[in-house]
Amino acid sequence: MRSVPRSVERLIEELNRLPGIGPKTASRLTFYLLRSPQEQVQALARAIGEMHEMVVTCSVCFNIAETSPCPICDDSQRDRTMLCVVEEPLDVLAIERIRQYDGLYHVLHGAISPIEGMGPEDLKIAELVERLGKNPVEEVILATNPSLEGESTAMYVSRQLATLGIRVTRLAQGLPMGGDLEYADEVTLTRALEGRREI
Amino acid sequence: MRSVPRSVERLIEELNRLPGIGPKTASRLTFYLLRSPQEQVQALARAIGEMHEMVVTCSVCFNIAETSPCPICDDSQRDRTMLCVVEEPLDVLAIERIRQYDGLYHVLHGAISPIEGMGPEDLKIAELVERLGKNPVEEVILATNPSLEGESTAMYVSRQLATLGIRVTRLAQGLPMGGDLEYADEVTLTRALEGRREI
Repeated sequence: MRSVPRSVERLIEELNRLPGIGPKTASRLTFYLLRSPQEQVQALARAIGEMHEMVVTCSVCFNIAETSPCPICDDSQRDRTMLCVVEEPLDVLAIERIRQYDGLYHVLHGAISPIEGMGPEDLKIAELVERLGKNPVEEVILATNPSLEGESTAMYVSRQLATLGIRVTRLAQGLPMGGDLEYADEVTLTRALEGRREI
Repeated sequence: MRSVPRSVERLIEELNRLPGIGPKTASRLTFYLLRSPQEQVQALARAIGEMHEMVVTCSVCFNIAETSPCPICDDSQRDRTMLCVVEEPLDVLAIERIRQYDGLYHVLHGAISPIEGMGPEDLKIAELVERLGKNPVEEVILATNPSLEGESTAMYVSRQLATLGIRVTRLAQGLPMGGDLEYADEVTLTRALEGRREI
């Protein structure tokens, strides 16, 4: 005895497989789509279905793009003396959004994580070293996440680059804007104190 | 200068239109799908695209189904003396899940909400009265939400049914299981006290 049509159940199941979407959110989204205009729903289905075939990985920076080299690597206006190393394509998006950085990127596609079985050889680190050997830059900004994995990855990468004589920097850590000192975790507060600046 | 492929941007936009999914979650889901196996992604796209054409509204209870009358209305095993009135198809699903109710349903498709411009005439209330006139039951359970809108709707519907001489009940209100008395809101605590039972 089923109280919900098979096609509805199937969509709930598929949505439930996505990260951060539990059975309740999956149901809610499904019933929302059921009430939505057919065109909006079909637009979503198309956007999902077509994305894979449109997207490639840039052979230079390993960011995702519709062309390779990607528009950023291909843009002669960008500062080719700076290279920002990030974990994921999403991080490129975040940095581009602030419009304060004009250099190039290198996407590692992950971070070193023994627990998840991710070693340096699973990341685009060898490719980074090779790229910098062929096209040297003045500064490499290690913009991996401020997490245990991101820190380990930054340490590992910086050691790999040590012999190249390039300036290697890391994004500043401290209290986030709008944050409350009282609720800051110990590591953040320690970093904020260590990194204090004269005003 | 775009840092993200158009097809990826398009999916982020489409997901962002869904309720409860902000730009960050939309990006996260999109990049997750980008890394997922092609088959899983296509299964999701198909599930979304096909749902609309497979689903109809039951002409008897107005629940969604793939046939009309729906499997519940069509099931001769179910108790035809009980009718449970709910706001949305999702509520039918929730009640069916607990496997404690064996009667029929009636889906109103919303609740009375002057703010959202939803009046009684926008709901399947006239259809409910007509249905009960033709096929009387012994008890109508008003299972609209325990919200201002749900309460108003239950009051309105109960007044419409007053002349039919049917027993009209409402789901109990009180402290939720696992809840903490200290954090219960005043209305819930008032209802819990009013509805107290001997143990």
